[in-house]
Formats: sequence, C-alpha cells, structure tokens
Amino acid sequence: MYRLWHAPGTAALAVHIALEEGGLPHALRRVDLAAGEQRGEGFRALNPKGRVPVLETPRGKLTEVPAILGYLAMAHPEARLMPADPFDFARAQAFNGYLASTVHVNHAHGPRAARWADDPAAQAAMRARVPHTMGESMALIARSMLAGPWVMGESWTACDGYLFTMCRWLEKDGVDIADHPAIAAHFEAMSARPAVRAALAHH
Amino acid sequence: MYRLWHAPGTAALAVHIALEEGGLPHALRRVDLAAGEQRGEGFRALNPKGRVPVLETPRGKLTEVPAILGYLAMAHPEARLMPADPFDFARAQAFNGYLASTVHVNHAHGPRAARWADDPAAQAAMRARVPHTMGESMALIARSMLAGPWVMGESWTACDGYLFTMCRWLEKDGVDIADHPAIAAHFEAMSARPAVRAALAHH
Repeated sequence: MYRLWHAPGTAALAVHIALEEGGLPHALRRVDLAAGEQRGEGFRALNPKGRVPVLETPRGKLTEVPAILGYLAMAHPEARLMPADPFDFARAQAFNGYLASTVHVNHAHGPRAARWADDPAAQAAMRARVPHTMGESMALIARSMLAGPWVMGESWTACDGYLFTMCRWLEKDGVDIADHPAIAAHFEAMSARPAVRAALAHH
Repeated sequence: MYRLWHAPGTAALAVHIALEEGGLPHALRRVDLAAGEQRGEGFRALNPKGRVPVLETPRGKLTEVPAILGYLAMAHPEARLMPADPFDFARAQAFNGYLASTVHVNHAHGPRAARWADDPAAQAAMRARVPHTMGESMALIARSMLAGPWVMGESWTACDGYLFTMCRWLEKDGVDIADHPAIAAHFEAMSARPAVRAALAHH
C-alpha cells in the first residue's frame, strides 16, 4: 500500500495518475497548501523540502516526480508504467527530467515568482514572461519530443500523465493549447482514460 | 564508446566524472557556448533544447543529467555508479532530481536570468537573490540529504559528482562553502579523487 501526499493543482497528479493506471493500491493524504501545512513542522519532518508530492512506500518515503515514477515502474514491471529496456527507460526519464527542471520551472515563475526575487516588480516581470516560456516549451515538445500518439510512441507510459499534469496549467499560464495541435490531441486522449478520470475526481 | 558533448563550467561535468569514475571509454566534444554553438543548426539537430550535456551512446543520444547518470549505472552495473537496489536507486535519483530542478535552477538565476524575465532590473533582482537560494539549498542538503561521507552513505555514487559540480558554482553564487562544513568536507574529498582530477583537467 502506498500513501501519496498531494495537493490539487500540483505535480502530485502525475504520481496519482501512475498509481491509478498501474492499478496500485494507494491512499491519498491531501496537504493544505493554502494554510501553509507544507511549511509546518509535521510535514517538514516528512519532507524537509516542504513540497508535494511525497510517496510513502513500504521501504520508506520518496520525493521528486521522475524518481517516484521510475521507482513505481521498477517495483511493478507488470504495470508497464515505463519502458523496460534501460535505454528507452532513460529516454523516458530524460523527458520527465525536461518537464521537472524546465517546464515546471517555467510555470512556477507565475505562482511562485517570490522564490527567485524579492522585488514585486521583478516578480511581475517573471509572471509576464510565463506565456512565452511555457509556449516555447510546448512548441519544443510538440516538434521534437512527443512521438505520438503517446509521448514515447505507441505505448502509454507515466510520461503521459506527467505531460498531462503540466498541460492542465496552460490556460492559467496564458498558453492556448490549440496552438499546439499534437499537445491538444494528447490532452484530449488523456482526459478520456478511466484512470485519469479517477485521479481527477480527487483534484 | 561514448561521446560527451560538454562545456566547461556546466552540469556536463557530472556526467564526465561518472564516465571517469566508472572507467567507461569516452570521447569529449566541447561546445563553444560563448560563440553560441549551442543555438546553431548543427547542435540543435543533436539536441533541440540547445543545452549541454548530450551523451551519444551506441543506442542513441541522451540528455538531462539524472537520466544520463541513471542510464550509465544501469548499462554498467559493474561500475557501481548508483545503488543497485531499486528503492535506493530511486532515493539517489530523488537527490539528483533536487539538484536538477531546484539547485541548478537557483544557480541559473544568476547567469541565465534572462530566461525568465526581459526587464534588466528584474534580472538584477534575480541575481541578487542567488546567494540566498543557493545558501538555503546547501543548508538543506547538509542538514537532511548528505548521509556522509558520501551523499548516499559509505559508498560513492554518481550523486557525489553531481553535487560536486554544483558546489564549484558556489563562490560565484556568493555562498561561502565554509558556512556548510559537511558540504565543504565533501568538496574536499571529491577534489582528491583521481577520476575527478582527470575530469577537471578538461574543464
């Protein structure tokens, strides 16, 4: 049994989708970000980084979405969450790494600009650029990463749930998903999957 | 035979150290960042993201440091670059993920502030905060991630080369490594390793 510490609207959804797609038993524990629970002593004892997601496993806790997705795939090969071949697994993890360290970061300059500058005017300048950086990332993904119909090609992987999670942010980020037809088609296909619907019911 | 596309002062050093530590045959190809080679057509054909490192393998090319380190570890288990146990492997990848998507990003707000805001005043505000964010990250690593003497404990892993790579940026980032004794000791121990010296000769 896994326990996923999550919050609606966060990257934790990518882990939740993987758990649902893999049919892996799990409980959810919602963290109240608005109340600052992630900065409280209780949560900091679980994750000193003060972020979601955290996945509690029978072996211990894990953080960072690509590491969690990779672990679930390795621990449950029958769930086929990631490619089994080591090179293809690494290509999938490179995709997840781009989402984690470039796309998520681009997005965060909207709601989390205060992380990187104290000056309110600077924070406003960061927010103003989010449509550009997120749009560039989506164009790049559509052009050179999304094999189609799924990220890695014919087989669904946990990369798809992670991309879908980022795409749910696009409207707020000032990006029209319709400008990127391959991404829009992926979003629509994801939205129709029963496991995704099951996860979204909690978000 | 691997070919590593790298540039001095970048995160590519983490991959280079892993190749040296693992005794894995490789050639280096230096990318001239100052001349903008990473934005040219030739390099974009190799990596549309326009970034280093890129690792060319017999199976194809890979990007994103955690994905590359994970691949080298899986492809060469005898080199013991990462823990063999899947849960410990995931914990090591969570560490690498924190470096990639938080620490590297904090650092990048110095030299690469223009990615996230057009306004020069906003870029200056971002640069001014780098000592704070990098200092916080180092404090967190020292307090709750670095098991000691190496990141994962008694055994050296590729996480150590990646942490060392970030620590080489600290002086320019306005962080005194001496304020974080566990990190400083790690840096000194890394600097003495023959494989690290061999890699640094090219940086």
